[in-house]
Amino acid sequence: MELQVIKVGGNIIDDEVKLAAFLKAFSTIEGYKVLVHGGGKIASEIGIKLNIEPNYVNGRRITDKPTLDLVTMVYGGLLNKNVVASLQALGCNAIGLTGADGGVIPAHRRLVRDIDYGFVGDVNSASINTRLIKILIHNGFVPVLAPLTYDGAGGLLNTNADTIAQEIAKAMSALMPVQLIYCFEKKGVLIDAADDNSVINSISRADFMELREKEIISGGMIPKLENAFAAIEMGVSKVILGHADELPALLTGNAGTWIV
Amino acid sequence: MELQVIKVGGNIIDDEVKLAAFLKAFSTIEGYKVLVHGGGKIASEIGIKLNIEPNYVNGRRITDKPTLDLVTMVYGGLLNKNVVASLQALGCNAIGLTGADGGVIPAHRRLVRDIDYGFVGDVNSASINTRLIKILIHNGFVPVLAPLTYDGAGGLLNTNADTIAQEIAKAMSALMPVQLIYCFEKKGVLIDAADDNSVINSISRADFMELREKEIISGGMIPKLENAFAAIEMGVSKVILGHADELPALLTGNAGTWIV
Repeated sequence: MELQVIKVGGNIIDDEVKLAAFLKAFSTIEGYKVLVHGGGKIASEIGIKLNIEPNYVNGRRITDKPTLDLVTMVYGGLLNKNVVASLQALGCNAIGLTGADGGVIPAHRRLVRDIDYGFVGDVNSASINTRLIKILIHNGFVPVLAPLTYDGAGGLLNTNADTIAQEIAKAMSALMPVQLIYCFEKKGVLIDAADDNSVINSISRADFMELREKEIISGGMIPKLENAFAAIEMGVSKVILGHADELPALLTGNAGTWIV
Repeated sequence: MELQVIKVGGNIIDDEVKLAAFLKAFSTIEGYKVLVHGGGKIASEIGIKLNIEPNYVNGRRITDKPTLDLVTMVYGGLLNKNVVASLQALGCNAIGLTGADGGVIPAHRRLVRDIDYGFVGDVNSASINTRLIKILIHNGFVPVLAPLTYDGAGGLLNTNADTIAQEIAKAMSALMPVQLIYCFEKKGVLIDAADDNSVINSISRADFMELREKEIISGGMIPKLENAFAAIEMGVSKVILGHADELPALLTGNAGTWIV
């Protein structure tokens, strides 16, 4: 049976109404599924109250120890457990995980080159513990992953949710066919950033290189697409990007952008 | 095989050195085991920074919505995930759970009689989902439970960790022999509160009634012992109370107070 790995971003997580609609659609998906959720603005809002100043170096946010504790609380606790509780109420037997739980997602602190990102984890792809995920889904549970990984030495690390979705999808592809769906606030990859309906139906790595060259694809879409291509190139059957509101159509291939 | 259900309190959770020693001892226990952890002072400390004022009615703390979010973050996120990560580093394949994960611990909001405790859950004993715990322990995982339960309608509830330990131990007793160990900051039930070494080796319900009458047992020991007796009377094989520092001796019955 095919596994659906579905990633939902912070923009949806932050919006109670949109999140409820998304989770309802997610809960109706039949068969094996895994949800990976992003962080959202709430961590920053709580951080401000806790006087945890966002720490930027060259425009990149650094995860210092107070920030690591903050995201552990907010991503691993507040967000993850409320998503789990909401899914349970929808009849979806969710179980929340970080990368530390069952040692599912081993990672290492990002190597310091120009910037020390602090407690940011790069996933040890070859060591992902698919066994727990497999046991859970085979027994009817639905893993819900927070964007936190495990450093192998008693510590958590902050890791981008798109990357976690990519890594889980790749690792699970060794066991079963996997479809990876990135749900975000756009209908897909847009050929005209100003036109929300200018969705490219499918995109190859060559197309991506060209559109990036022309700066039609820029900003946060670049790492998102890098993750998507890494997945498709490493054995994930299908990778689709699209709007969280359109999850049912994304699942059947009738919306969003296919990575080919 | 016997299941060890071990509860560790907030006083240990709050003390980095004691917690590390406790987790090391816990990690060496062979066979099936479950850890239930309490809350600790850190939630109150973070609550103060977040301007979540402790709300007391008749001396009892009320869990209002901001407090529920606080404990969800701190118990379900910060504490639970750091305990899991520490255990993983000790070679113990821990997996952190709240009562919402896998619907393990269904509860209902405490009925309002004289006081409305807010988002406090009383466990629906008959509905505990032992299946997830069983699957996890049979596959070599070690469930680590935070003191949060699930209201069946998308919400979490704040529940005393002693109670959770009792309920899990009772429910699991239907499947296998269970030993329940309450680890706290005393060597057991003391016959003289001023003498830490005046441990009563064993206590029956009749002894308890008598000692409570004489006010030798008072305060927080009363609900702790109520939980312990509820467990032993509902099929848990052995129930022991003792000091977290003495976990190995508690396991072999060479320390602490036995509930008989």
